[in-house]
Amino acid sequence: MSPSLREERKIRTSATIAAAALDLFAARGYAAVTVAEVAAAARVGERTLYRYFADKEDLLFAEDDGWRASLRAAIEQEPAGEPPFTVLRGAAATLARALEDRREEVRRHGEVIASAPALAARERAKHAAWEADLAEGLCARGVAAGEARLLGRITVACFDEALTRWLAQDGPHRTLGAELDAAFAELGALAT
Amino acid sequence: MSPSLREERKIRTSATIAAAALDLFAARGYAAVTVAEVAAAARVGERTLYRYFADKEDLLFAEDDGWRASLRAAIEQEPAGEPPFTVLRGAAATLARALEDRREEVRRHGEVIASAPALAARERAKHAAWEADLAEGLCARGVAAGEARLLGRITVACFDEALTRWLAQDGPHRTLGAELDAAFAELGALAT
Repeated sequence: MSPSLREERKIRTSATIAAAALDLFAARGYAAVTVAEVAAAARVGERTLYRYFADKEDLLFAEDDGWRASLRAAIEQEPAGEPPFTVLRGAAATLARALEDRREEVRRHGEVIASAPALAARERAKHAAWEADLAEGLCARGVAAGEARLLGRITVACFDEALTRWLAQDGPHRTLGAELDAAFAELGALAT
Repeated sequence: MSPSLREERKIRTSATIAAAALDLFAARGYAAVTVAEVAAAARVGERTLYRYFADKEDLLFAEDDGWRASLRAAIEQEPAGEPPFTVLRGAAATLARALEDRREEVRRHGEVIASAPALAARERAKHAAWEADLAEGLCARGVAAGEARLLGRITVACFDEALTRWLAQDGPHRTLGAELDAAFAELGALAT
């Protein structure tokens, strides 16, 4: 098996386990589900599961590294000379596009996260790491540290709010991208 | 002793214990200090300390309820008809004024918080609670929930960044209020 095929299979296995975990957590509650049950549902051994995930909590944050890498890549790929906030809006829009078809999954994920203080704490830490990533990405493009930090925080604030609104709607709903644009537009309207 | 005198004494005792705790934590590291040592430094018994603080972590978040109450009060006291963001800027400025003379203490507090992941997590939870308080305060003034949440998040983002900049300066420095105004002004400049 070639290295890239092996890599692909690893990503698929990890995603299968994470999906099985979310299904079980959403159905029966995070606390009530054991790691052994997740492994069984994903049809892997417990030892295999632990090769991919350090602990039960990790099962809900499988994609973190991937999101952070794609945020960083999106910032790097914006054309040189773009205004800093435009760069971050572009990065946030990239993330929004990646989530657009996964609304029910994102909603269930959020519900499980909200059900346990330790998970909510880790979710907040994740968003703080995003803020830092966005700021670092801008600094690498020559933006001053203070401005970069503020824009990173503002961008994550708008993204979080867009996500909240996107998930709150029942039935027909606006896209996450549209909610994100709306949040940024409201921000723009504040400048009076 | 009258009820108000008793209340005053309780607040003073609590502040004395919290100050002793911060001194010890800053000098010797959070993990290395015991609750008994804090009690001894504050010249109270350990049982007295536990009447004021549920646990060691609590010693660093003594003023939380007070800050939240003053944020809520500041929002209520803004004149009717003020634009929502002006209301929150006013509330943030109230908080900034209350901290203005306590820069070294706030800096040491921040350093202790940053030294332990559990404390950093609680600090993030505290800021999330502020966001919710600000949003609720706006909702009570008739602002729509989504707009109120976004403005709450944005205001805390600006306040956090102002605090970071205020603490980062050595020697002569701008006031926290000035840093807050600057952060809000940068936000305004984004609307292009």
